[in-house]
Amino acid sequence: MNTTANTQEQIINGVNVTRMMETIEAVKGDPEIGDFKFRVKNTWQKGGYNEATITDFYGAKDNIPHEQPFVIKADEPDILLGKDQGPNPVETLLAALSGCMTTTLAYKSAGAGKTVSDVSSEFEGDIDLQGFLGIRPDVNKGYNEIRVKFKVKGDVTEDEVREMVKNSPVYDTLVRPIAIRIDVEKAG
Amino acid sequence: MNTTANTQEQIINGVNVTRMMETIEAVKGDPEIGDFKFRVKNTWQKGGYNEATITDFYGAKDNIPHEQPFVIKADEPDILLGKDQGPNPVETLLAALSGCMTTTLAYKSAGAGKTVSDVSSEFEGDIDLQGFLGIRPDVNKGYNEIRVKFKVKGDVTEDEVREMVKNSPVYDTLVRPIAIRIDVEKAG
Repeated sequence: MNTTANTQEQIINGVNVTRMMETIEAVKGDPEIGDFKFRVKNTWQKGGYNEATITDFYGAKDNIPHEQPFVIKADEPDILLGKDQGPNPVETLLAALSGCMTTTLAYKSAGAGKTVSDVSSEFEGDIDLQGFLGIRPDVNKGYNEIRVKFKVKGDVTEDEVREMVKNSPVYDTLVRPIAIRIDVEKAG
Repeated sequence: MNTTANTQEQIINGVNVTRMMETIEAVKGDPEIGDFKFRVKNTWQKGGYNEATITDFYGAKDNIPHEQPFVIKADEPDILLGKDQGPNPVETLLAALSGCMTTTLAYKSAGAGKTVSDVSSEFEGDIDLQGFLGIRPDVNKGYNEIRVKFKVKGDVTEDEVREMVKNSPVYDTLVRPIAIRIDVEKAG
Protein backbone atom coordinates (compact mmCIF):
# COMPACT_ATOMS: atom_id res chain seq x y z
CA MET A 1 0.00 0.00 0.00
CA ASN A 2 1.60 3.23 -1.15
CA THR A 3 0.82 6.54 0.37
CA THR A 4 0.36 9.31 -2.17
CA ALA A 5 3.59 10.91 -1.05
CA ASN A 6 5.58 7.76 -1.81
CA THR A 7 4.04 7.16 -5.22
CA GLN A 8 6.43 8.22 -7.92
CA GLU A 9 5.86 6.73 -11.33
CA GLN A 10 8.88 5.57 -13.25
CA ILE A 11 8.83 6.56 -16.94
CA ILE A 12 11.43 5.07 -19.33
CA ASN A 13 11.30 5.55 -23.13
CA GLY A 14 7.97 7.31 -22.63
CA VAL A 15 6.56 4.11 -21.11
CA ASN A 16 5.07 4.20 -17.63
CA VAL A 17 6.98 1.28 -16.16
CA THR A 18 5.17 1.54 -12.83
CA ARG A 19 1.82 1.00 -14.56
CA MET A 20 3.34 -1.77 -16.72
CA MET A 21 4.43 -3.65 -13.61
CA GLU A 22 0.98 -3.11 -12.04
CA THR A 23 -0.61 -4.50 -15.20
CA ILE A 24 1.60 -7.59 -15.06
CA GLU A 25 0.61 -8.16 -11.40
CA ALA A 26 -3.08 -7.64 -12.20
CA VAL A 27 -3.02 -10.17 -15.09
CA LYS A 28 -1.03 -12.64 -12.95
CA GLY A 29 -3.73 -12.37 -10.27
CA ASP A 30 -6.63 -12.67 -12.72
CA PRO A 31 -5.67 -13.90 -16.21
CA GLU A 32 -9.10 -12.95 -17.59
CA ILE A 33 -8.00 -9.30 -17.38
CA GLY A 34 -5.48 -10.14 -20.10
CA ASP A 35 -8.03 -11.54 -22.58
CA PHE A 36 -8.15 -8.96 -25.37
CA LYS A 37 -10.20 -8.94 -28.58
CA PHE A 38 -9.33 -6.49 -31.34
CA ARG A 39 -11.78 -5.58 -34.12
CA VAL A 40 -12.02 -3.93 -37.50
CA LYS A 41 -14.94 -3.25 -39.83
CA ASN A 42 -14.33 -2.91 -43.54
CA THR A 43 -16.47 -1.30 -46.23
CA TRP A 44 -15.70 -1.81 -49.89
CA GLN A 45 -16.15 1.11 -52.24
CA LYS A 46 -14.93 0.09 -55.70
CA GLY A 47 -12.12 -1.86 -57.33
CA GLY A 48 -9.08 -1.84 -55.04
CA TYR A 49 -10.47 0.85 -52.75
CA ASN A 50 -11.92 0.07 -49.32
CA GLU A 51 -11.77 1.42 -45.79
CA ALA A 52 -11.17 -0.31 -42.47
CA THR A 53 -12.60 1.39 -39.38
CA ILE A 54 -11.46 0.72 -35.83
CA THR A 55 -13.67 2.02 -33.02
CA ASP A 56 -13.29 -0.19 -29.95
CA PHE A 57 -11.80 -3.34 -28.49
CA TYR A 58 -12.35 -5.70 -25.58
CA GLY A 59 -9.93 -5.92 -22.68
CA ALA A 60 -9.85 -6.07 -18.88
CA LYS A 61 -13.34 -7.67 -19.06
CA ASP A 62 -14.93 -4.69 -20.82
CA ASN A 63 -15.50 -3.07 -24.21
CA ILE A 64 -13.25 -0.06 -24.47
CA PRO A 65 -13.89 2.66 -27.08
CA HIS A 66 -10.95 4.42 -28.72
CA GLU A 67 -10.69 8.19 -28.17
CA GLN A 68 -11.80 8.52 -31.82
CA PRO A 69 -12.44 6.09 -34.69
CA PHE A 70 -9.38 5.29 -36.80
CA VAL A 71 -9.75 4.72 -40.55
CA ILE A 72 -7.17 2.90 -42.65
CA LYS A 73 -7.73 3.24 -46.38
CA ALA A 74 -6.66 0.60 -48.86
CA ASP A 75 -6.05 1.04 -52.56
CA GLU A 76 -3.73 -0.36 -55.22
CA PRO A 77 -1.23 1.55 -57.34
CA ASP A 78 -1.95 2.00 -61.03
CA ILE A 79 0.20 -0.98 -62.05
CA LEU A 80 -2.02 -3.14 -59.82
CA LEU A 81 -5.16 -1.59 -61.35
CA GLY A 82 -6.04 0.88 -58.58
CA LYS A 83 -6.04 4.66 -58.18
CA ASP A 84 -3.25 4.80 -55.56
CA GLN A 85 -5.38 6.59 -52.96
CA GLY A 86 -3.95 4.60 -50.06
CA PRO A 87 -1.27 2.03 -49.26
CA ASN A 88 -2.09 -1.41 -50.49
CA PRO A 89 -2.88 -4.07 -47.89
CA VAL A 90 0.46 -5.88 -48.11
CA GLU A 91 2.16 -2.54 -47.41
CA THR A 92 -0.21 -1.95 -44.47
CA LEU A 93 0.80 -5.39 -43.19
CA LEU A 94 4.46 -4.29 -43.17
CA ALA A 95 3.41 -1.06 -41.42
CA ALA A 96 1.68 -3.13 -38.72
CA LEU A 97 4.79 -5.28 -38.30
CA SER A 98 7.06 -2.23 -38.11
CA GLY A 99 4.82 -0.49 -35.57
CA CYS A 100 4.59 -3.57 -33.41
CA MET A 101 8.29 -4.44 -33.37
CA THR A 102 9.12 -0.79 -32.61
CA THR A 103 6.63 -0.49 -29.73
CA THR A 104 7.76 -3.85 -28.41
CA LEU A 105 11.36 -2.62 -28.32
CA ALA A 106 10.32 0.56 -26.46
CA TYR A 107 8.24 -1.38 -23.90
CA LYS A 108 10.59 -4.34 -23.37
CA SER A 109 13.66 -2.16 -22.98
CA ALA A 110 11.76 0.11 -20.57
CA GLY A 111 10.72 -2.97 -18.59
CA ALA A 112 14.38 -3.98 -18.38
CA GLY A 113 15.33 -0.49 -17.20
CA LYS A 114 17.17 0.29 -20.44
CA THR A 115 16.85 3.56 -22.32
CA VAL A 116 16.62 3.81 -26.11
CA SER A 117 16.75 7.20 -27.81
CA ASP A 118 16.56 6.87 -31.61
CA VAL A 119 14.85 3.91 -33.21
CA SER A 120 14.29 3.68 -36.94
CA SER A 121 13.74 0.67 -39.15
CA GLU A 122 13.22 -0.54 -42.68
CA PHE A 123 11.02 -3.43 -43.78
CA GLU A 124 10.94 -5.18 -47.15
CA GLY A 125 9.04 -8.23 -48.32
CA ASP A 126 8.88 -10.21 -51.56
CA ILE A 127 5.72 -11.22 -53.38
CA ASP A 128 5.70 -13.20 -56.63
CA LEU A 129 2.53 -12.20 -58.50
CA GLN A 130 2.42 -15.56 -60.27
CA GLY A 131 0.72 -16.79 -57.07
CA PHE A 132 -2.12 -14.26 -56.77
CA LEU A 133 -2.71 -14.16 -60.52
CA GLY A 134 -3.28 -17.92 -60.55
CA ILE A 135 -0.45 -18.59 -63.01
CA ARG A 136 1.43 -21.04 -60.78
CA PRO A 137 -0.40 -22.86 -57.95
CA ASP A 138 2.97 -23.79 -56.36
CA VAL A 139 3.85 -20.10 -55.81
CA ASN A 140 2.75 -18.42 -52.56
CA LYS A 141 0.18 -15.66 -52.94
CA GLY A 142 1.58 -13.69 -50.00
CA TYR A 143 5.04 -12.80 -48.73
CA ASN A 144 7.87 -15.27 -49.18
CA GLU A 145 10.29 -13.55 -46.83
CA ILE A 146 10.34 -10.31 -44.88
CA ARG A 147 13.62 -8.51 -44.09
CA VAL A 148 13.88 -6.11 -41.17
CA LYS A 149 16.67 -3.62 -40.39
CA PHE A 150 16.70 -1.76 -37.09
CA LYS A 151 18.95 1.17 -36.22
CA VAL A 152 18.94 1.86 -32.51
CA LYS A 153 20.67 4.32 -30.22
CA GLY A 154 20.66 3.55 -26.55
CA ASP A 155 21.52 1.39 -23.61
CA VAL A 156 20.94 -1.94 -25.43
CA THR A 157 23.17 -4.33 -27.37
CA GLU A 158 22.39 -5.51 -30.90
CA ASP A 159 21.60 -8.98 -29.54
CA GLU A 160 19.27 -7.57 -26.91
CA VAL A 161 17.38 -5.62 -29.58
CA ARG A 162 17.09 -8.72 -31.78
CA GLU A 163 15.65 -10.76 -28.89
CA MET A 164 13.34 -7.99 -27.62
CA VAL A 165 11.66 -7.28 -30.98
CA LYS A 166 10.79 -10.97 -31.35
CA ASN A 167 8.27 -10.49 -28.53
CA SER A 168 6.14 -8.40 -30.91
CA PRO A 169 2.58 -9.78 -31.21
CA VAL A 170 2.47 -9.02 -34.97
CA TYR A 171 5.87 -10.69 -35.47
CA ASP A 172 4.60 -13.69 -33.53
CA THR A 173 1.40 -13.75 -35.62
CA LEU A 174 3.43 -13.83 -38.85
CA VAL A 175 6.03 -16.46 -37.95
CA ARG A 176 3.35 -18.93 -36.81
CA PRO A 177 0.44 -20.23 -38.93
CA ILE A 178 -2.81 -18.59 -37.70
CA ALA A 179 -6.31 -20.09 -37.86
CA ILE A 180 -8.67 -17.75 -39.75
CA ARG A 181 -12.37 -18.69 -39.66
CA ILE A 182 -14.42 -17.28 -42.52
CA ASP A 183 -18.21 -16.80 -42.48
CA VAL A 184 -20.04 -15.47 -45.52
CA GLU A 185 -23.57 -14.12 -45.62
CA LYS A 186 -25.20 -13.42 -48.95
CA ALA A 187 -27.35 -10.30 -48.65
CA GLY A 188 -29.82 -9.84 -51.50
CA MET B 1 -2.97 -6.65 -82.43
CA ASN B 2 -5.99 -4.46 -81.69
CA THR B 3 -6.88 -1.45 -83.72
CA THR B 4 -7.88 1.54 -81.62
CA ALA B 5 -11.45 1.22 -82.80
CA ASN B 6 -11.73 -2.34 -81.53
CA THR B 7 -10.24 -1.65 -78.12
CA GLN B 8 -12.98 -1.53 -75.53
CA GLU B 9 -11.89 -2.12 -71.98
CA GLN B 10 -14.08 -4.29 -69.81
CA ILE B 11 -14.64 -2.89 -66.30
CA ILE B 12 -16.30 -5.08 -63.64
CA ASN B 13 -16.55 -4.09 -59.96
CA GLY B 14 -14.43 -1.06 -60.80
CA VAL B 15 -11.63 -3.40 -61.90
CA ASN B 16 -10.24 -3.10 -65.43
CA VAL B 17 -10.50 -6.75 -66.42
CA THR B 18 -8.92 -6.12 -69.81
CA ARG B 19 -5.76 -4.79 -68.14
CA MET B 20 -5.86 -7.62 -65.57
CA MET B 21 -5.85 -10.21 -68.36
CA GLU B 22 -3.02 -8.33 -70.10
CA THR B 23 -1.06 -8.36 -66.83
CA ILE B 24 -1.56 -12.11 -66.48
CA GLU B 25 -0.29 -12.65 -70.03
CA ALA B 26 2.70 -10.36 -69.45
CA VAL B 27 3.73 -12.19 -66.25
CA LYS B 28 3.20 -15.57 -67.95
CA GLY B 29 5.53 -14.45 -70.74
CA ASP B 30 8.17 -13.02 -68.38
CA PRO B 31 7.78 -14.07 -64.74
CA GLU B 32 10.32 -11.44 -63.59
CA ILE B 33 7.65 -8.79 -64.27
CA GLY B 34 5.72 -10.34 -61.38
CA ASP B 35 8.54 -10.03 -58.81
CA PHE B 36 7.35 -7.34 -56.40
CA LYS B 37 9.04 -5.93 -53.30
CA PHE B 38 7.02 -3.82 -50.87
CA ARG B 39 8.66 -1.51 -48.32
CA VAL B 40 7.99 0.51 -45.21
CA LYS B 41 10.17 2.80 -43.09
CA ASN B 42 9.34 3.31 -39.45
CA THR B 43 10.39 6.07 -37.08
CA TRP B 44 9.81 5.77 -33.35
CA GLN B 45 8.77 8.84 -31.45
CA LYS B 46 8.05 7.87 -27.84
CA GLY B 47 6.43 5.08 -25.86
CA GLY B 48 3.81 3.34 -28.00
CA TYR B 49 3.86 6.03 -30.70
CA ASN B 50 5.63 5.56 -34.04
CA GLU B 51 4.98 6.19 -37.73
CA ALA B 52 5.38 3.95 -40.76
CA THR B 53 5.94 5.69 -44.10
CA ILE B 54 5.37 4.09 -47.48
CA THR B 55 6.80 5.87 -50.51
CA ASP B 56 7.61 3.35 -53.25
CA PHE B 57 7.83 -0.30 -54.21
CA TYR B 58 9.52 -2.50 -56.79
CA GLY B 59 7.57 -4.21 -59.54
CA ALA B 60 7.71 -4.90 -63.28
CA LYS B 61 11.53 -4.64 -63.02
CA ASP B 62 11.48 -1.06 -61.73
CA ASN B 63 11.11 1.07 -58.60
CA ILE B 64 7.71 2.69 -58.66
CA PRO B 65 6.91 5.72 -56.48
CA HIS B 66 3.43 6.11 -55.00
CA GLU B 67 1.45 9.21 -56.03
CA GLN B 68 2.15 10.50 -52.51
CA PRO B 69 3.76 9.06 -49.38
CA PHE B 70 1.37 7.23 -47.06
CA VAL B 71 1.83 7.41 -43.29
CA ILE B 72 0.33 4.91 -40.88
CA LYS B 73 0.53 5.96 -37.24
CA ALA B 74 0.74 3.50 -34.39
CA ASP B 75 -0.12 4.12 -30.78
CA GLU B 76 -1.59 2.16 -27.88
CA PRO B 77 -4.79 2.94 -25.95
CA ASP B 78 -4.49 4.18 -22.37
CA ILE B 79 -5.03 0.70 -20.89
CA LEU B 80 -1.97 -0.44 -22.87
CA LEU B 81 0.02 2.59 -21.69
CA GLY B 82 -0.26 4.79 -24.78
CA LYS B 83 -2.03 8.03 -25.69
CA ASP B 84 -4.47 6.48 -28.22
CA GLN B 85 -3.34 8.68 -31.10
CA GLY B 86 -3.56 5.88 -33.65
CA PRO B 87 -4.68 2.29 -34.00
CA ASN B 88 -2.39 -0.18 -32.35
CA PRO B 89 -0.36 -2.48 -34.60
CA VAL B 90 -2.48 -5.60 -34.02
CA GLU B 91 -5.51 -3.56 -35.12
CA THR B 92 -3.60 -2.34 -38.17
CA LEU B 93 -2.82 -5.98 -38.96
CA LEU B 94 -6.58 -6.75 -39.00
CA ALA B 95 -7.11 -3.67 -41.21
CA ALA B 96 -4.52 -5.04 -43.66
CA LEU B 97 -6.24 -8.44 -43.67
CA SER B 98 -9.67 -6.85 -44.20
CA GLY B 99 -8.41 -4.62 -47.03
CA CYS B 100 -6.70 -7.50 -48.76
CA MET B 101 -9.56 -10.01 -48.55
CA THR B 102 -11.98 -7.30 -49.77
CA THR B 103 -9.82 -6.27 -52.74
CA THR B 104 -9.19 -9.92 -53.56
CA LEU B 105 -12.95 -10.54 -53.69
CA ALA B 106 -13.47 -7.53 -56.00
CA TYR B 107 -10.63 -8.61 -58.34
CA LYS B 108 -11.28 -12.35 -58.38
CA SER B 109 -15.02 -11.95 -58.97
CA ALA B 110 -14.32 -9.40 -61.72
CA GLY B 111 -11.89 -11.87 -63.30
CA ALA B 112 -14.64 -14.50 -63.24
CA GLY B 113 -17.07 -12.05 -64.88
CA LYS B 114 -19.17 -11.78 -61.71
CA THR B 115 -20.50 -8.52 -60.30
CA VAL B 116 -20.55 -7.69 -56.59
CA SER B 117 -22.30 -4.56 -55.35
CA ASP B 118 -22.10 -4.25 -51.56
CA VAL B 119 -19.25 -5.82 -49.62
CA SER B 120 -18.78 -5.25 -45.90
CA SER B 121 -16.96 -7.32 -43.35
CA GLU B 122 -16.05 -7.64 -39.68
CA PHE B 123 -12.79 -8.99 -38.28
CA GLU B 124 -12.02 -10.02 -34.71
CA GLY B 125 -8.94 -11.63 -33.20
CA ASP B 126 -7.99 -12.85 -29.72
CA ILE B 127 -4.80 -12.01 -27.90
CA ASP B 128 -3.96 -13.28 -24.41
CA LEU B 129 -1.71 -10.66 -22.79
CA GLN B 130 -0.07 -13.30 -20.61
CA GLY B 131 2.11 -14.01 -23.65
CA PHE B 132 3.44 -10.51 -24.39
CA LEU B 133 3.78 -9.64 -20.71
CA GLY B 134 6.05 -12.65 -20.19
CA ILE B 135 3.78 -14.23 -17.56
CA ARG B 136 3.34 -17.55 -19.39
CA PRO B 137 5.90 -18.66 -22.00
CA ASP B 138 3.42 -21.27 -23.31
CA VAL B 139 0.94 -18.55 -24.35
CA ASN B 140 1.25 -17.01 -27.83
CA LYS B 141 2.21 -13.34 -27.93
CA GLY B 142 0.13 -12.67 -31.06
CA TYR B 143 -3.31 -13.71 -32.31
CA ASN B 144 -4.66 -17.12 -31.43
CA GLU B 145 -7.53 -17.05 -33.92
CA ILE B 146 -9.02 -14.52 -36.29
CA ARG B 147 -12.72 -14.60 -37.21
CA VAL B 148 -13.99 -13.01 -40.40
CA LYS B 149 -17.59 -12.25 -41.42
CA PHE B 150 -18.37 -11.10 -44.95
CA LYS B 151 -21.71 -9.70 -46.13
CA VAL B 152 -21.89 -9.61 -49.90
CA LYS B 153 -24.50 -8.58 -52.44
CA GLY B 154 -23.99 -9.74 -55.99
CA ASP B 155 -23.64 -12.43 -58.55
CA VAL B 156 -21.64 -14.83 -56.33
CA THR B 157 -22.56 -17.69 -54.01
CA GLU B 158 -21.43 -17.88 -50.39
CA ASP B 159 -19.07 -20.73 -51.28
CA GLU B 160 -17.56 -18.76 -54.16
CA VAL B 161 -16.90 -15.81 -51.85
CA ARG B 162 -15.27 -18.08 -49.25
CA GLU B 163 -12.96 -19.58 -51.89
CA MET B 164 -12.16 -16.26 -53.60
CA VAL B 165 -11.13 -14.39 -50.43
CA LYS B 166 -8.65 -17.16 -49.58
CA ASN B 167 -6.54 -15.93 -52.51
CA SER B 168 -5.72 -12.79 -50.52
CA PRO B 169 -1.94 -12.28 -50.14
CA VAL B 170 -2.32 -11.06 -46.54
CA TYR B 171 -4.57 -14.04 -45.70
CA ASP B 172 -1.96 -16.33 -47.25
CA THR B 173 0.80 -14.60 -45.29
CA LEU B 174 -1.05 -15.18 -42.01
CA VAL B 175 -2.10 -18.81 -42.45
CA ARG B 176 1.47 -19.87 -43.34
CA PRO B 177 4.59 -19.36 -41.17
CA ILE B 178 6.73 -16.57 -42.71
CA ALA B 179 10.51 -16.21 -42.47
CA ILE B 180 11.43 -12.82 -41.00
CA ARG B 181 15.15 -11.93 -41.08
CA ILE B 182 16.19 -9.33 -38.52
CA ASP B 183 19.31 -7.14 -38.75
CA VAL B 184 20.22 -4.72 -36.00
CA GLU B 185 22.68 -1.89 -36.20
CA LYS B 186 23.68 -0.06 -33.05
CA ALA B 187 24.14 3.63 -33.84
CA GLY B 188 25.95 5.57 -31.15
